Amino acid sequence: MKTPSSLNHLVDALRVLPGVGPKSAQRMAYHLLQRDQPGAAALAHALADALARLQHCQRCNTFTEQDLCELCSDPSRDAHQLCVVEMPADLLRMEQTLAFKGYYFVLMGRLSPLDGIGPSDIHFDKLLARAQDGIVEEVILSTNFTVEGEATAHYLAELLRAQGLKVSRIARGLPSGGELEHVDSSTLAQALIERRSL
Amino acid sequence: MKTPSSLNHLVDALRVLPGVGPKSAQRMAYHLLQRDQPGAAALAHALADALARLQHCQRCNTFTEQDLCELCSDPSRDAHQLCVVEMPADLLRMEQTLAFKGYYFVLMGRLSPLDGIGPSDIHFDKLLARAQDGIVEEVILSTNFTVEGEATAHYLAELLRAQGLKVSRIARGLPSGGELEHVDSSTLAQALIERRSL
Repeated sequence: MKTPSSLNHLVDALRVLPGVGPKSAQRMAYHLLQRDQPGAAALAHALADALARLQHCQRCNTFTEQDLCELCSDPSRDAHQLCVVEMPADLLRMEQTLAFKGYYFVLMGRLSPLDGIGPSDIHFDKLLARAQDGIVEEVILSTNFTVEGEATAHYLAELLRAQGLKVSRIARGLPSGGELEHVDSSTLAQALIERRSL
Repeated sequence: MKTPSSLNHLVDALRVLPGVGPKSAQRMAYHLLQRDQPGAAALAHALADALARLQHCQRCNTFTEQDLCELCSDPSRDAHQLCVVEMPADLLRMEQTLAFKGYYFVLMGRLSPLDGIGPSDIHFDKLLARAQDGIVEEVILSTNFTVEGEATAHYLAELLRAQGLKVSRIARGLPSGGELEHVDSSTLAQALIERRSL
C-alpha cells in the first residue's frame, strides 16, 4: 500500500515552512485536502502571486511590489536619518510610534552563525551603499535586544563608524509604565548604566 | 506605510494551516520569500497538483489518484473483514503489522462535537453502504483510544449492529514489552477487565 505521490509531494513541500516537521506536515496536508480545499487553492495562488510580484525595495530592502517602496518614495521624510531594523514588521511597529521621520533599512534578518546566517545573507553591502549616499548623517540601529540582534548591532556599528557615519542604538530600559519590581535584572541593570542626566 | 497586498494575501492564506496564527503566518511568509523561494514555488505547485489529482477512494474513502485505491484494487485480500480507521496514516500503520488481510474504511476524522464534526462529516453513510455489500461479515473498529475515537467507535458500533453486522473493537491493554509499574492506571484497569482466558 503506497501513499499517492501527489499527497507525498504535498507533505514534503509543506516541510519548507519553518517549524513544520513530518508529523505536522501530514496533519496540515490532511486538513487542507479534507476540510479546506478552497483555502488550499487560495494558498497556492497567494504563494505564486507573492513570488511573482514581491521584490526588495532598491533603497530600503523591504518587500514591495514596485522598485521603490511607498515609504522610500515619500520625499517629505528626513533623509539625514536612517533607521536599521531586522524585519518589515519592525519597520511597521516603528512607524506606529509616529516618533521617527527618517528613512529605514530592513536587514531581512539578523546575524545568526548557528543558523548559518552571516553578513552576506543580511544585505550589509546594500546597507553600506545606502548609508553612504552623502545625505545620511546618522544611522540608528534598531535591531532587537536579543543576543543575535545585539551582535548584529555591534558588527554594523563598527562597519558604519569606519565610514565616518554617526551611529546610535535605540535605548534599552524599563518599558513605559514598567515597575522596578517586575522588570528583569538585566534590563534594570542596563537602565541604570544608560541613565540620563536631567 | 502599507504592506504590499500580495504579502498580506500570503500571510492571510497561510492561516488556513491548522495551528498557524497571525504571528507564525507572518514568520512563514518572510521565511519563504526571504530564504526559500524555490521551496515556496514547490509548495504552490504541490498544493495545486494534490488538489487536482487526489480524490477519495470510492470504496475505502482514503486519498487516491484513481477511482479505487491500490489496496481496494487488490482482489487477494479477505473481503469478509472491514477495518475502520480514522486517518490514512492509521491504515499505513495497520498494514505495517502484516496482521490484517481484509479491507479498510478510512473515516477521514472522528466524531468531535466541539470542533463541529458530526456523523455527516466523517462519511458514516459511505461506511454503512460499504459494510452492507453482502460480503463483509465483521467490522473491526480501529479508531484511536482517545475520547473522540472511543465515542466514534461506540456510535458506529450501534449503527452497524443495527444492520446485523458483527462488530468488534481492537483491544486495549499493555503494550508489548510493557511493565505494570510503568503503565497508566486506566490502561491497566482496562487490561484487567478485558483479560483473556488461557
